[in-house]
Amino acid sequence: MALPLTDTTRLDNTLAVIRTLREQGPVARIDLGALNGISPATVTSISAELLQQGLITERPPETLRPSGRGRPKTLIELSPTAACVVCVKLSINEIQLVVGDFAGQIRHSEYHTVPTLTLSANALERLLEEKISAVCAQQLQSFQRLAGICLAVQGVVSSHSGTIIWSPALGLRNVPISACLAERFHCSVLLENDANCIANLLTAQPAYADCPNLVVIMLGYGIGMSVLINGEPFVGANGSAAEFGHSKYLPNGALCACGRRGCIEAYASDYALYRAAVNHLELPPGDSAHPSEQQMQALTQLAQQGNPEAQRIYSEAGQALGYGIANVLALFNPDLVIITGSGVRGFDAMKAAMHSAIDEALVTELIGNTRIESYAWDRDMTCMGGIAMALHATDAQTLLDSQTAREA
Amino acid sequence: MALPLTDTTRLDNTLAVIRTLREQGPVARIDLGALNGISPATVTSISAELLQQGLITERPPETLRPSGRGRPKTLIELSPTAACVVCVKLSINEIQLVVGDFAGQIRHSEYHTVPTLTLSANALERLLEEKISAVCAQQLQSFQRLAGICLAVQGVVSSHSGTIIWSPALGLRNVPISACLAERFHCSVLLENDANCIANLLTAQPAYADCPNLVVIMLGYGIGMSVLINGEPFVGANGSAAEFGHSKYLPNGALCACGRRGCIEAYASDYALYRAAVNHLELPPGDSAHPSEQQMQALTQLAQQGNPEAQRIYSEAGQALGYGIANVLALFNPDLVIITGSGVRGFDAMKAAMHSAIDEALVTELIGNTRIESYAWDRDMTCMGGIAMALHATDAQTLLDSQTAREA
Repeated sequence: MALPLTDTTRLDNTLAVIRTLREQGPVARIDLGALNGISPATVTSISAELLQQGLITERPPETLRPSGRGRPKTLIELSPTAACVVCVKLSINEIQLVVGDFAGQIRHSEYHTVPTLTLSANALERLLEEKISAVCAQQLQSFQRLAGICLAVQGVVSSHSGTIIWSPALGLRNVPISACLAERFHCSVLLENDANCIANLLTAQPAYADCPNLVVIMLGYGIGMSVLINGEPFVGANGSAAEFGHSKYLPNGALCACGRRGCIEAYASDYALYRAAVNHLELPPGDSAHPSEQQMQALTQLAQQGNPEAQRIYSEAGQALGYGIANVLALFNPDLVIITGSGVRGFDAMKAAMHSAIDEALVTELIGNTRIESYAWDRDMTCMGGIAMALHATDAQTLLDSQTAREA
Repeated sequence: MALPLTDTTRLDNTLAVIRTLREQGPVARIDLGALNGISPATVTSISAELLQQGLITERPPETLRPSGRGRPKTLIELSPTAACVVCVKLSINEIQLVVGDFAGQIRHSEYHTVPTLTLSANALERLLEEKISAVCAQQLQSFQRLAGICLAVQGVVSSHSGTIIWSPALGLRNVPISACLAERFHCSVLLENDANCIANLLTAQPAYADCPNLVVIMLGYGIGMSVLINGEPFVGANGSAAEFGHSKYLPNGALCACGRRGCIEAYASDYALYRAAVNHLELPPGDSAHPSEQQMQALTQLAQQGNPEAQRIYSEAGQALGYGIANVLALFNPDLVIITGSGVRGFDAMKAAMHSAIDEALVTELIGNTRIESYAWDRDMTCMGGIAMALHATDAQTLLDSQTAREA
């Protein structure tokens, strides 16, 4: 019996089952039904279909539970090899390529140092095609199909038109990029802001299930933000909303990488912290324009060890960050603000000044009940989120492809 | 034949017809159908129902059109007396009560000077009950029914729970107000932020039909904002989003009415302009804490006449406003920002500095294509918007009530 893809309820239920298996790992049929409000009979029928199509597998029944009661349940899980997606993260002078399996796990990751800032549009296109081709040649034989590609980019992108509008990683503006990659690799290409990828990853976590209005701030070389409103990414009229790094702390203040003055980024990003520190503190040698992780860790360590100059620098950054967050609270009134990104390494040294600044800036009614939390950074988080988004965007197509392949 | 209110398509079509008649005035049946994608037969049936229920009336056929061609069309229009709503606007030391008819037009308006800042919760409740009772006693006999009440309040409200969370007009916090009024007047009560009422009025205008992401900034004694995302008011997690007036221009800057420093309101509101002017310029006498319209017009006139001190004051206000709008552009990326409110009287004197500040603050990619426009202020705009929202919220109930009344 072919999966009746014209039946939208059936399709929605099938997609919900796949998503649950991806987020929760192996699950028993009965729990899949309960988690998604689907009848046991429907779950049985959907899982039979998915088994036939090779999209899920059964796990041998688990041994008796510790309680010793109840019959052991057969768990079902996604077949990791049913499909893969490639996530490419484009940042300043570096691209990361990650292959994610159908279960959403990273199967391969590689980094390349590339002078991104001087690339022409053609060179960028050729570079991405070449790197993705290489990774496909090496990895694709382990999978049934390449379901899609996610391109995660710092800066302003139009996901709708597949165009990078403005990125600190590029010297270019308005680069249409999705269409040529889609044509070259015969799959759908999702262009996303890097902070939106992180937000997607975090919002799927049970700890944040009660926070549909979520703001994620990414500290690092630059400063990014993602805003989820009722669980959906908010991108504004043209994709350039949530540009927190370039919202203002101080008119005519410190010079920002964007060329304007007084942006939050010009105080609380890695390059701003490094710039404030370099003439006063002894840090490991490196490229002054792009401080290394080692240099930034050395600076953070100085602050942690009580060096007054390093503490002053982080405190100033924390104050700018706090004033910026105060504006976010006044304008977005979110349930939760999560601060992450590689720059979160220095968050403890900024935290007190950040909270003071928020209290100084806003009456308590406007701070409200919004929680402000940090989240430990893992450099694979962007690609993990990008993989999840690319899989989610392509699940319906994967279903159709596996059905066609089975019928052929 | 009773209107089958259980048929949701029929109900939706009927509500759409009523809304179109309210927004456009008298319309021919054929145009009503075309505007709402409803078949001529359905429009005929719906309008027959509405005629029987007394909710619409027919206009005698118009004389021949100027072209002389075509048969004159019978127009239908809402019966203004089918229902009324009362909108109460609560601002600092003043309440305005307006009665709107079923066609959305103002039929009566009155103002009362009241010391709002010192009212207890009980006294506020009694005051509103007394004023609404008085207006009902005087006006209600002209209408079939009181459909609802809209309470339009400056500040942060929870429409959901009917609670005024924080308003500059009150010395109180967290005042539940809707429930007692609903019980007293046996009708639904809508509690709304005043800027949302204005935004509702503006967004219905054909000129803004292509701007689903709309920001309305209200300049006046205080500064308010409403944000529409895809045409829907954005209120945040607890109703306190879009508090533009208390977003920041300058850390540790000028004192704001909220008690904090450096808010946009502390530079660009009426009280801030007056405060900056009062020791340097000769203005008509008045209450220094709450500058009068006459005083503010005198100050605006000085700037228009080229008085350098008045020009400097407006220019500084424009700069603060511009930096605030820059943050709104970076964070919300709207299609359009409309500046209105009584303070728009001084907008011409702020405009150049505002645009300079925006250009100084943001790279062109983040300014994008967002239009920034002013809109001439009319002191009835808040209540016009409140009336429209209250009517829209109660149309289904009005339909049901008229059906019940006709059957009785």
